[in-house]
Amino acid sequence: MYLDLTMPLDEKTPVYPGDPKQQIEQIATVAKDGWAEKRLTFNSHLGTHIDAPSHMIEGGKTLDDFPIETFIGEAIVVTLGDISAVKKDDIVFFNTNHTKNAYDPGFFQNNPVLSTKLAEKLVELGVKIVGLDSFSPDKEPWPVHKVLLAHDILIVENLVNLDQLLGKRFMCYILPLKIKDGDGAPCRVVANV
Amino acid sequence: MYLDLTMPLDEKTPVYPGDPKQQIEQIATVAKDGWAEKRLTFNSHLGTHIDAPSHMIEGGKTLDDFPIETFIGEAIVVTLGDISAVKKDDIVFFNTNHTKNAYDPGFFQNNPVLSTKLAEKLVELGVKIVGLDSFSPDKEPWPVHKVLLAHDILIVENLVNLDQLLGKRFMCYILPLKIKDGDGAPCRVVANV
Repeated sequence: MYLDLTMPLDEKTPVYPGDPKQQIEQIATVAKDGWAEKRLTFNSHLGTHIDAPSHMIEGGKTLDDFPIETFIGEAIVVTLGDISAVKKDDIVFFNTNHTKNAYDPGFFQNNPVLSTKLAEKLVELGVKIVGLDSFSPDKEPWPVHKVLLAHDILIVENLVNLDQLLGKRFMCYILPLKIKDGDGAPCRVVANV
Repeated sequence: MYLDLTMPLDEKTPVYPGDPKQQIEQIATVAKDGWAEKRLTFNSHLGTHIDAPSHMIEGGKTLDDFPIETFIGEAIVVTLGDISAVKKDDIVFFNTNHTKNAYDPGFFQNNPVLSTKLAEKLVELGVKIVGLDSFSPDKEPWPVHKVLLAHDILIVENLVNLDQLLGKRFMCYILPLKIKDGDGAPCRVVANV
């Protein structure tokens, strides 16, 4: 069975305060043009997306510096309080339930955060991707982003449905838009459970 | 081993004649803003993408009408001349090598096409997705699109690297951007071979 861990992309998808909002426009319709087509405008870090090292690290790797295998692997969902089941090369997802508030005015405030110490422990363990069901694992000035990205550990943000997988291990497919030199990209995330 | 069947998205990605071109803009940099971010503007049918029935059929299903399992399954790569190995529920990819010309001026002319008869045969066989390494399985007025989409068979266009998989069967992951009411969406396509 497959479970979709991706937030829908629409006019409501929340945008970090200060960033320009997305636009979705119907530029052709079957009735008038013979086919339907939309024109989309959005930031590379909208909705469920992945951060490359170059998002925060000057001269850091972009998404196309990683082989496609990087985005596929064994994932485990844990809480911020217990990472004892995490192993080398894991994709680690933290269940915080914060994206359940994605459409509330307070979404970008009071988000649960990883400590820098926890981020360093994940580096030590040698995980390959860290994700969570919140817009960020930290707050400005982004200490956790910097620790993880400096070690080429990718970060997946705005996941959903993690509560359904708490404590489980599964194959996970985190497939980003193939944007050249991407500092990040929206991705579709699917769990095989 | 995984093989990426996706075309890169950049300024050069070819756009169907008459459609507006994509724009990729660096709206923030680490040096100036503390993080790097791009702003992307493009059509829902740019690059390697999937067509939903609503792309050509008035009132047809959109991408979010399909369960996530639709986008994952057993795929086979065949030629336009021989579909004898194709089975019910297959993802069928036709190797034409036409996307090798993607950056040539003649790309949108003289594309290899499926016959309407072949499209009807695929409907009869009960395949779930038809894809190819060209921008379209047909030419205006799009008879093959209409036969397949009218039967809720999705179409994947602008694949690459199919020549490496000719005659092979493999699990394939065709994960589109989760655009609400999508008449189509860019997708990342990965073969497990």
